[in-house]
Amino acid sequence: MTYTLNRDIELRERARSAFPAGVYGHQASISLSPEHPQFFARAQGGRLWDVDGNEYIDFMCSYGTNLLGHHHPKVEEAAARQQAIVDCATGPSPLMVELAESFKTRQAHADWAMFAKNGTDATTICLMTARAQTGRNTILVAEGAYHGAGPWCTPGAVGVTAADKANQLTYHFNDVESLKAAVAQAGDDLAGIVVSPFKHDVFVDQEWPTQEFASTMRALCDETGAALILDDVRCAFRFSLGSTWETIDVQPDLCAMSKSVANGYALSVVTGNNKFREGASQIYTTGSFWFASVSFAASLATIEAIESEGALEQMKVSGDLLRSGLDQLATSHGFKLRQTGPSQMPLVLIDDDPDWQKNNFFCAEAAKRGVYLHPWHNMFICAAHRESDIEEALQRTDGAFAALKERFI
Amino acid sequence: MTYTLNRDIELRERARSAFPAGVYGHQASISLSPEHPQFFARAQGGRLWDVDGNEYIDFMCSYGTNLLGHHHPKVEEAAARQQAIVDCATGPSPLMVELAESFKTRQAHADWAMFAKNGTDATTICLMTARAQTGRNTILVAEGAYHGAGPWCTPGAVGVTAADKANQLTYHFNDVESLKAAVAQAGDDLAGIVVSPFKHDVFVDQEWPTQEFASTMRALCDETGAALILDDVRCAFRFSLGSTWETIDVQPDLCAMSKSVANGYALSVVTGNNKFREGASQIYTTGSFWFASVSFAASLATIEAIESEGALEQMKVSGDLLRSGLDQLATSHGFKLRQTGPSQMPLVLIDDDPDWQKNNFFCAEAAKRGVYLHPWHNMFICAAHRESDIEEALQRTDGAFAALKERFI
Repeated sequence: MTYTLNRDIELRERARSAFPAGVYGHQASISLSPEHPQFFARAQGGRLWDVDGNEYIDFMCSYGTNLLGHHHPKVEEAAARQQAIVDCATGPSPLMVELAESFKTRQAHADWAMFAKNGTDATTICLMTARAQTGRNTILVAEGAYHGAGPWCTPGAVGVTAADKANQLTYHFNDVESLKAAVAQAGDDLAGIVVSPFKHDVFVDQEWPTQEFASTMRALCDETGAALILDDVRCAFRFSLGSTWETIDVQPDLCAMSKSVANGYALSVVTGNNKFREGASQIYTTGSFWFASVSFAASLATIEAIESEGALEQMKVSGDLLRSGLDQLATSHGFKLRQTGPSQMPLVLIDDDPDWQKNNFFCAEAAKRGVYLHPWHNMFICAAHRESDIEEALQRTDGAFAALKERFI
Repeated sequence: MTYTLNRDIELRERARSAFPAGVYGHQASISLSPEHPQFFARAQGGRLWDVDGNEYIDFMCSYGTNLLGHHHPKVEEAAARQQAIVDCATGPSPLMVELAESFKTRQAHADWAMFAKNGTDATTICLMTARAQTGRNTILVAEGAYHGAGPWCTPGAVGVTAADKANQLTYHFNDVESLKAAVAQAGDDLAGIVVSPFKHDVFVDQEWPTQEFASTMRALCDETGAALILDDVRCAFRFSLGSTWETIDVQPDLCAMSKSVANGYALSVVTGNNKFREGASQIYTTGSFWFASVSFAASLATIEAIESEGALEQMKVSGDLLRSGLDQLATSHGFKLRQTGPSQMPLVLIDDDPDWQKNNFFCAEAAKRGVYLHPWHNMFICAAHRESDIEEALQRTDGAFAALKERFI
């Protein structure tokens, strides 16, 4: 078995000059092992081929945008059909209304919808809507949570001012007392509370919300009139066609979604209830491509396929199978895994690895064997990952554990 | 001739419920006449068909994203070919590097490029880069200019805080003294100056920059180390494949582009020089779909088509023809027009109309006759508008002037 990244290395060299310092943002492979490729040539279903021809069973799924599998026939057909008619024009097509109505029908809290392009657009619309509706400024966010990469929310420390991050207070996810304390601190200036459906911060164990935490947040928002803003950008459609918190029976006021809502076509969505309709109607926000219909057609087809093809169930089955299989493999090679988060969006960490050496080595060895795993970010299962794909991935990963054992035990 | 918008009116009614208050943002037709349709069924070349079947010669060109005409065969072929291979994956395809290199080759100031989805993303990247590179905060913007719709730049007054708009000072476009005064006021905190290639504010006469204004800005940035940030989002590729200020021989440090760079596919671009490479490499910004290759393929094909098909020349010829034709028509009906801005992006205002009644009425009458004109926003010529289309548009518009005369003279 030969695993080389020669063409990838050439492209990375060109990329260091063509971009400020190589590929930037969340897809910069420089933050992964040298065995993780940077550039891909082809995708199909739940698999990728890099520019050197290496094949991967891909458990990042385009960082979540791939939900039904690349080139899902019904989504591609709907998108191509719409592309031949009209995409970005001087006004939207009727599909924009149809898609908004589809979200209203499927999401318990939703009385209206708005569409944009980035997840950051969607969280920013929620922020602006909460402030517009309440006439207040303070927003609570969970310490360490990611809500986008604009000036108000980027986790980067450079290029942003203190003013960009003003009017924000923090609480700790699943920590009811810290939440109450932040609400008290905000006093009568509380505009909204932003929360991820589950804690999916990088590098640390993931946490599903406790019922008490979510219910307390709902109650605090009801008491204060602040918006409960669910940042469902990363999770939308992996657990429900409603907001992800419908699975725990807590309704947000505003919900930001993106990633998988159009199975890879660029789209983000905000849904909101009537309490926040007036605020949403008063803000001015827009984008050159926000009214383009191909992404609406793709989203409508994605919703239909999720419903008709059992995608939610398939991702759970495949995620559970991967989880139990990885645990068995780890145990058989003498390692303990910390597998946290829902199995459809698993974080898999090798325990007892304070400097991340084992995790990085293990994921590099998996890449060399054709399994794309991430050493510190939650991963994603897609519905094109069938049981046979998971079995194959586990077979390939066995060798990565063996290499890990040889190196570290 | 019957002109009805029955289906459009039904859809607007649904849209009032499906969205916060109907279609939002720059494509909300509520800000135009009742005769301007909100929803479109089909587009081809430089023409649109609304949901009631009415045809328009479209001089908004999707607010600028349509440059070569809808469904340009080479762009559509390149996009479809790439869509069948890979669009949004776990990393980019080599097309991302190729496109960045293409911008470097064609833009005199460009040593690197970055890609995003919205024009706002691009201007925001420039803002963050200028601050990162200089370690300073203050940004100058022209009074009344539009640079996007995020919290720091939205022209809306609601849903934003004073902090969102902190660290900004204003100058007046083409007013060298006001520019010098703002630079002096910023003192040693000046991070960058944002400027549009020409003044294309809504409702007011457009202005091409004087050489003195642009050269003074360049000199002030050189003296202070601040970034000259050209907001070329709306203008890119309508005057040059370089930045629009290459036509006046003044180089920006950072250039934000979007709209027409991929002929309607969602893409925005930042190009920068090596003085700002380090700053750009230090900011953290990203988006779920920023690495998707179909828009890169479309942009490469757009660039090739512009170069091989004389698109820049065609838009100038057609724009000039429309301008002179409209002037002749206006004169023949007893009206005087104020036509400002370059003819490829004309603002056409009927003079002596303080309450906009004549402009609104005239554009409504043009819409009823199959010509989509905008009463207060600059319009756009596309390369699919050939001389015969302009002649046809003028013939149709003659009746609108006649109706205007009947009503107002």
